[in-house]
Amino acid sequence: MGQTIIEKILSSHSGQEARANEIVVARVDYVMGQDGTAPLAIRAFNEMGGSRVFDPECVAFVIDHSAPSPNEGVSALHKMMREFVREKGFRLFDIGEGVCHQVVPESGVVGPGSLVIGADSHTCTYGALNAFSTGVGSTDLAGGLISGRMWFKVPETVKFVCNGTLAPGVYSKDLILHLIGEVTADGATYLAAEYAGEAIAALSQEARFTIANMAIEMGAKAGLMEADEKTMAWLRRYTDREFKPVSADPDASYARILEYDVAKLEPQVARPHRVDNVAPLSQVAGKPVQQALIGTCTNGRLEDLRIAAGILGGRKVHRDVRLIVAPASRRVFLDAMAEGIIQTLVQAGAAVVTPGCGPCVGTHNGVPSDGETVISTANRNFKGRMGNSNAEIYLASPASVAASALTGKITDPREYI
Amino acid sequence: MGQTIIEKILSSHSGQEARANEIVVARVDYVMGQDGTAPLAIRAFNEMGGSRVFDPECVAFVIDHSAPSPNEGVSALHKMMREFVREKGFRLFDIGEGVCHQVVPESGVVGPGSLVIGADSHTCTYGALNAFSTGVGSTDLAGGLISGRMWFKVPETVKFVCNGTLAPGVYSKDLILHLIGEVTADGATYLAAEYAGEAIAALSQEARFTIANMAIEMGAKAGLMEADEKTMAWLRRYTDREFKPVSADPDASYARILEYDVAKLEPQVARPHRVDNVAPLSQVAGKPVQQALIGTCTNGRLEDLRIAAGILGGRKVHRDVRLIVAPASRRVFLDAMAEGIIQTLVQAGAAVVTPGCGPCVGTHNGVPSDGETVISTANRNFKGRMGNSNAEIYLASPASVAASALTGKITDPREYI
Repeated sequence: MGQTIIEKILSSHSGQEARANEIVVARVDYVMGQDGTAPLAIRAFNEMGGSRVFDPECVAFVIDHSAPSPNEGVSALHKMMREFVREKGFRLFDIGEGVCHQVVPESGVVGPGSLVIGADSHTCTYGALNAFSTGVGSTDLAGGLISGRMWFKVPETVKFVCNGTLAPGVYSKDLILHLIGEVTADGATYLAAEYAGEAIAALSQEARFTIANMAIEMGAKAGLMEADEKTMAWLRRYTDREFKPVSADPDASYARILEYDVAKLEPQVARPHRVDNVAPLSQVAGKPVQQALIGTCTNGRLEDLRIAAGILGGRKVHRDVRLIVAPASRRVFLDAMAEGIIQTLVQAGAAVVTPGCGPCVGTHNGVPSDGETVISTANRNFKGRMGNSNAEIYLASPASVAASALTGKITDPREYI
Repeated sequence: MGQTIIEKILSSHSGQEARANEIVVARVDYVMGQDGTAPLAIRAFNEMGGSRVFDPECVAFVIDHSAPSPNEGVSALHKMMREFVREKGFRLFDIGEGVCHQVVPESGVVGPGSLVIGADSHTCTYGALNAFSTGVGSTDLAGGLISGRMWFKVPETVKFVCNGTLAPGVYSKDLILHLIGEVTADGATYLAAEYAGEAIAALSQEARFTIANMAIEMGAKAGLMEADEKTMAWLRRYTDREFKPVSADPDASYARILEYDVAKLEPQVARPHRVDNVAPLSQVAGKPVQQALIGTCTNGRLEDLRIAAGILGGRKVHRDVRLIVAPASRRVFLDAMAEGIIQTLVQAGAAVVTPGCGPCVGTHNGVPSDGETVISTANRNFKGRMGNSNAEIYLASPASVAASALTGKITDPREYI
C-alpha cells in the first residue's frame, strides 16, 4: 500500500517506513521558537541540563509577538532570548524582521520534504511548501533544541479536494474559512490535512500559505500540499537549496476524502468567538466595525497587501475605523514600498505597524476597546484574543477587510473590484 | 519701553499692554490635548459643567502617546477621547497620524503671533514658528476648552544669542543640549527663552523646532524665535492662512542676554538621568548601546530622518543594537518614503513603528531591558522615562544616534559624514 505525503516525510526522517498511527522518532530539519514560547523553552532547556543546541544552523528564535517590546516584563524575556541565542550561536530574528512564519520560509530553510517544529500553533503554515511542519509546546521545543529529534504518532490524512475555480473577489482565506466551517474546529483533530484539486492548483504560492496556516483551526497536525512549479519558483526567490517534492502515492490510504465545488463560494467570515462559526459575508454585511487589521502570518504577505491596496487606492478609510496594517516581514515591507503599496495604504489612512504579529495576539499595537467590533485577516477570533474580551472579532480576507475599512461596516469586497 | 515677543503676543491676545510679571487673561487661538492628558481634561470638563468647546475649529485631540493602543486600559481612554470629540465636533488625530507637536503645525493652525495651549509639556515647540505656545495641566486644558481663554503671568524673557556657525556634523540638537547644560534644568524657570543670532538664522525651519521643543528642559515657559523667510516658506507648504511676524522691539527689556559662540561646538549628549547632564559626545564615546531611537517631537521630522539615512545608507545596524525609527507624522512618513529614506533605514535594519511618540514615553513600542543603554533623539532621559528604571538613556542628535547604531557604541557622527 502506498504512502501519504506525511508518511513519506516521517519515513525519510525516521529511517523506517512510517505508517499512520505508528510512533516514530524523527530527525527534525529546523526548530523555531518565538517570544511567546521561547522563554519557557529556555527554562526547560536548562532544567534538562542542555548545553548546546543540536545544530546552530538549524535553529532560530523570532521576536515577533510583542515587537518592539510594549513593557518591562516582555523586555526581560526578549533579553533572555537574545542572551541565549548569543551563547548558543544560532540565528535570532529580532524586532522588525517579521512574523516567524514568514521569516522562516523567507530564510530558505524549509521546502518540500522538510520536517520543521516550532513552538507556535501556526507552524503548520509551511505545509504550503510541501513540508511537514507542526506546532509543539515549549518543553518539546527544548527537547528538540537539544536533540534535533522528536517523537510523533504518524497522523492519518484527510484529503480536501477542491474542484472548480474561485470567483473574482473570493480568495484562499474564504476557501479555508469555508472548509473550517464545514468540518468544524475539531473536525480534523490530529489528522494531516492534505489540500488538493484544481482550486488549490490555481492559487498563487502566497495564497496557499493562508490555507496551510489555518489547518490547526480544524484541529489538524499539519496542512500539506503537493509542490508544483509555483512552489519551486517561490523557493528559488529565497534560496539555492535543492528540495525534492514529495507526492502521495496513488494508492495511499486516507482517513477521509472530502470533495468540494468552490466555484460558487462567496466571501466568507468567521463570526465571534469561534473560527468555525463561519458564514457567507452577506449574512453579516452592514455590521459596523471600529477597527480593521490587515496582516499576520495568515494574510500579511505582499499579495495580501497588494489586494488591499487595490481596493483602498485613491479612497479613504471611514472616519470611524482605525485600519492597522502589519507587513509580515521586513522583506514584505520593502517589497511593498517598492511597489508603492505601503504608500497607497498610508494615503488611504492606514496606521502601519512594525513588521511582526501586530495586534493579532492582543499584546500591543491595537487592542480594541469595550464593545468594539474588529474585522481582521488573522486566524483566530477567540474571546479576548486581541486583548479585550469585551470586543468582537470577525475574520475575513484582506479584500473584505479593506472594503469594510472603507465603509465602516462589514462589506462585500466585490463592490470594489 | 519696548516689548519682547511674548509681551506682544500676550498684548494682542489680552487686549491690554502686557508687561513682564503682570497677570493677563488672554484669548487662545488653539487648544490641544493628547492621549496622556485629554482623558483627565474630559473629566475636569464634565466636572466644570462644560457643554460645548469654545470653538470646534480651534481644538484638537491627538492620539499619539500610546498609538495604536498597547492594552485594554489605554483603549478605554482612547474610546473616551473619540466619543468626546465626536460629541463636541472638533478634530481628532487618531492612531498613525503622528505626534501632536508635528500634526498641529502641519495642520496650519499655528504661526507667527499665535497663542496655543496644549496639555503636553513640549507644546513650547511652536515657538519656532514665532508663536507663544505652552504646556498646561489637564484641568487648565478643560478650562481652555470651555472658555477659549487662559490667565498668564507674563514671563520675563531670557535671550540666547548664538553667534558663529555650527560645524558639519553638529546640529540644532547639539546646540540646544549645550544651552541646557549651560543654564541647567531650572536655569530659565518661567522665563520665555528667545533664541537669536546667526547660528539660529542659519538653521532650517525643521532644525529650529528641535530648539524650541526643548525650551521646557531649561524650565522655560516658551521657546521663541523671530519669523524669517524660512518660517514663512515652511508655513506656506501647509496653509494659506496669513500670519504677521512678531519681533521684539529694539529697546525691549530682558531678564538676561546670554551670548554664545557655537562655531567650535562639538556633538553633545545628555547623560543619564538628567537632560542638563550634558557633555561633549567625545567624553562618552565608546559606551556600548543596545537600543537606538530616531524620532519623537524633538527629532522625528523629515530632515532628521534624511540625516540618519545619510549615515545608515548602504550600511547595516550593529547586530547588538535595535534601531527604532518613529516618523513624527503620516506626512513625514509619506514624504520619507517618496525620498526613499524609509527604504534606506529599513534596509539598514531599522524597525519602523507607527508615526507617533514611539517608545519615548515608555508606554510601548520599545521598552528597554534591565541594564541596557539607549541612545535617543528624544527630549528626556529621566530614570524610567522609557518604561524601565534600570535602563540608561543618552540624548543626542539623529546623526549621533545613527552613527552609534552602526557601531554599537556611542559614536561621533563626523566619522561617517
